[in-house]
Amino acid sequence: MSKNNVTLEENYSEWYNNIVIKANLADHSAVRGCMVIKPYGYAIWELMQQALDTMFKDTGHVNAYFPLFIPKSFFSKEASHVDGFAKECAVVTHYRLKNASDGSGIVVDEDAKLEEELIVRPTSETIIWNTYKSWIQSYRDLPLLVNQWANVVRWEMRTRLFLRTAEFLWQEGHTAHATAQEAITETEKMLDVYADFVENWMAVPVIKGIKTANERFAGAIETYCIEALMQDGKALQAGTSHFLGQNFAKAFDVKFATAESKQEYVWATSWGVSTRLMGALIMAHSDNQGLVLPPKLAPTQVVIVPIYKTEDELKAISLKANELVQELKKLGIRVKFDNDDKQRPGWKFAEYEFKGVPLRVAIGARDMQNGTAELARRDTKSKEAVKQDELVSKIETLLTEIQSNLFIKAKNFRDNSIHHVDRWDVFVKTLDEKGGFISAHWDGTAETEQKIKEETKATIRCIPLNNENEEGKCILTGKPSTQRVLFARAY
Amino acid sequence: MSKNNVTLEENYSEWYNNIVIKANLADHSAVRGCMVIKPYGYAIWELMQQALDTMFKDTGHVNAYFPLFIPKSFFSKEASHVDGFAKECAVVTHYRLKNASDGSGIVVDEDAKLEEELIVRPTSETIIWNTYKSWIQSYRDLPLLVNQWANVVRWEMRTRLFLRTAEFLWQEGHTAHATAQEAITETEKMLDVYADFVENWMAVPVIKGIKTANERFAGAIETYCIEALMQDGKALQAGTSHFLGQNFAKAFDVKFATAESKQEYVWATSWGVSTRLMGALIMAHSDNQGLVLPPKLAPTQVVIVPIYKTEDELKAISLKANELVQELKKLGIRVKFDNDDKQRPGWKFAEYEFKGVPLRVAIGARDMQNGTAELARRDTKSKEAVKQDELVSKIETLLTEIQSNLFIKAKNFRDNSIHHVDRWDVFVKTLDEKGGFISAHWDGTAETEQKIKEETKATIRCIPLNNENEEGKCILTGKPSTQRVLFARAY
Repeated sequence: MSKNNVTLEENYSEWYNNIVIKANLADHSAVRGCMVIKPYGYAIWELMQQALDTMFKDTGHVNAYFPLFIPKSFFSKEASHVDGFAKECAVVTHYRLKNASDGSGIVVDEDAKLEEELIVRPTSETIIWNTYKSWIQSYRDLPLLVNQWANVVRWEMRTRLFLRTAEFLWQEGHTAHATAQEAITETEKMLDVYADFVENWMAVPVIKGIKTANERFAGAIETYCIEALMQDGKALQAGTSHFLGQNFAKAFDVKFATAESKQEYVWATSWGVSTRLMGALIMAHSDNQGLVLPPKLAPTQVVIVPIYKTEDELKAISLKANELVQELKKLGIRVKFDNDDKQRPGWKFAEYEFKGVPLRVAIGARDMQNGTAELARRDTKSKEAVKQDELVSKIETLLTEIQSNLFIKAKNFRDNSIHHVDRWDVFVKTLDEKGGFISAHWDGTAETEQKIKEETKATIRCIPLNNENEEGKCILTGKPSTQRVLFARAY
Repeated sequence: MSKNNVTLEENYSEWYNNIVIKANLADHSAVRGCMVIKPYGYAIWELMQQALDTMFKDTGHVNAYFPLFIPKSFFSKEASHVDGFAKECAVVTHYRLKNASDGSGIVVDEDAKLEEELIVRPTSETIIWNTYKSWIQSYRDLPLLVNQWANVVRWEMRTRLFLRTAEFLWQEGHTAHATAQEAITETEKMLDVYADFVENWMAVPVIKGIKTANERFAGAIETYCIEALMQDGKALQAGTSHFLGQNFAKAFDVKFATAESKQEYVWATSWGVSTRLMGALIMAHSDNQGLVLPPKLAPTQVVIVPIYKTEDELKAISLKANELVQELKKLGIRVKFDNDDKQRPGWKFAEYEFKGVPLRVAIGARDMQNGTAELARRDTKSKEAVKQDELVSKIETLLTEIQSNLFIKAKNFRDNSIHHVDRWDVFVKTLDEKGGFISAHWDGTAETEQKIKEETKATIRCIPLNNENEEGKCILTGKPSTQRVLFARAY
């Protein structure tokens, strides 16, 4: 039976790790910084993928696949990209192993050294724009709206399951356009798709905004982002969408003939979300009894547990339960009847609670006499007796209600965690004592932003979209400012 | 307009490459041996993945994800596995790049050398069985039925798009069982799943069999396979399913407590199919007009092309076409109405023909007067006038018919290409002049098999399941034999 021996209040970080490992979501592997995504965790990721993939296709995108490896020289082609991405990465230098001459095992064959090292992709702008050169000749070839589902590697020194791992799974969209405006529209559209997904599927409210120059993607003109708040008051960047201007088109010489037969550089965007979202999902809703999942992303939405003493009792309950399973499946509800006789009901209750199954139906011998069942919600932990012939409609209603309840709860928490602060001492104190987002004035310089980061570990999460103009003074330097920005400590 | 300037009869290999590239299925990349799977090719692969994934789940399997990298030492743990897989592979030796001190670009940071090299997975038995050690304690944890969709890398010297590339996409199932019999049953079940998929989705007939020791997977006790025949008379291994015995359990010390509390080693299977199936699909059905796709795997099953001179004509045709699109979509048929005015109907006809769209509906102004449309089949190239109100049911029927027609055609070809041969000179002559499978006696030794391969380039593709016993003499050595085996030259 899974149980968290640390509460969220005692040690948030350990509480999180325990949920990830004990709920069988992921585990550390023998390879430093790389995780194993276990079947239960992967089933949640698959539901996320399906929802996102459908949204991408509904907005006109197609999937493709580009090489895992990128020649080292490609990174040097876009000046700012190289500093951001070609540093901590996995470098392939050889292509063959051989038996050691002393019989001690296998060793790298020095005769099989690559002429140019290959980098395991940390992101694919370079290899993709190198490919687009041959795909794009004329305005007729545009827009090119391509997405890739892939693994990427960034050599992180301090890793945490799902949140920061050397290898992670993600999707990366890479689009090409004839005009700057069209590319900006695409960048904003995909930010909306991400916000829609995170809010309506993950039940996590987000703030849309743009990054400051310091926090911008290496190679982007503008980075848009969605920022979420975790229960410990730390922010988490849930997705980014970049307007890349003509930077990569120039680096890889990708031009197109306009309708007027002029040669122009192509405009680009890229956008991505990753298995990091799994971390956000877990941290946003879970509690001291374990994982809490929004119904739309729960691999099992309803579990039915029989409570019986005799075989005859089990037989009668099973008949009813199987009927229920059929009816729920017809409605597209993911349901499991757990009639495993190796575990007792109490064990099962705790197990499914820990794994975040949104609804539990318990049917006992007395229920069979009364034509009832006990229906328990994971989110509120409330239970009620429900007539068996009302179960299906009740379950359908409750799944919708739980989905919206989780969002409302998270949104209330988030809204109450945005603090307007105008004094430096209050800024520091609020960060230490309350956490959350701090809405404060900033003088707009990278130096001030850096200094605030060094002194408080807080970064500017974003400048919210449609931000209000407001005269004010920078929280640190007192210099004039025209708008508030959102600061937070972040994952 | 795409067109193959080489016929299949003139140069099969070039004909194949032209289809792959000109139908926008895949392309070479800047990285030696690695391909780019283009959107149209990837859409076919996605349909394959969905069908297979559903079949895996219907047979009780779940998906998970294991690390891309494998520590070098893992390969040495299973004696025969190391020779098969730890040779031609991508080796990661460093984890950081830095700016060259002379400003010439970026170079590998020699301070960031890994203590132990990491191998980019060529297959995942070792890392997975190392992980299973912590997942399996008791018989209650078994069977473990896990599949992974992933990219793998094998450093191939001579590569061909889809058929043999350094990086490819695949799925690999890795299951763990309490008994040998249960593992063998699983191995056979997954072979049946593969045969079902290749025959009923890809419309390619296969022969199920087992591999000889020479051709066995490195680390397997028995390798089961399905073998298909391409139009040039060469065989292609379409999928393999391995009974691994306790080899990997012993190598990674994975034991379980039986119900009687005894400690025993776990029994294993692994099975996989890859993007190589795309090559088989293309080669099995396509012709000199381009790609031919079975309807179940065609991203677009029906294309509607309007033929018009005036805007009013287009308007009337569009009204009808959009109606048709709605009705077909309701039936789950993938349909596209191509009203792009930048291309002429003739261009579109050739384009969709080349891309293998199974059915084409052309509607012209005269058709609108007559209440008809022209319906053309890609497989037989036959055309007929069909009443508009019969189009939907006709299309539904034809899609099923095309699917089965492609299979029958391929099966007739395959059946007619199995040659029973009892003399060495005929064996050599048949291989050179007819190709196909040669059913011949073999003395059962690895030496003879090797010698036949050296002299003719033919290998034993498989010993068919449920093979008939038959007294005979080895085709090469004349030694006694009890059964015929299938030889062929192969991809």
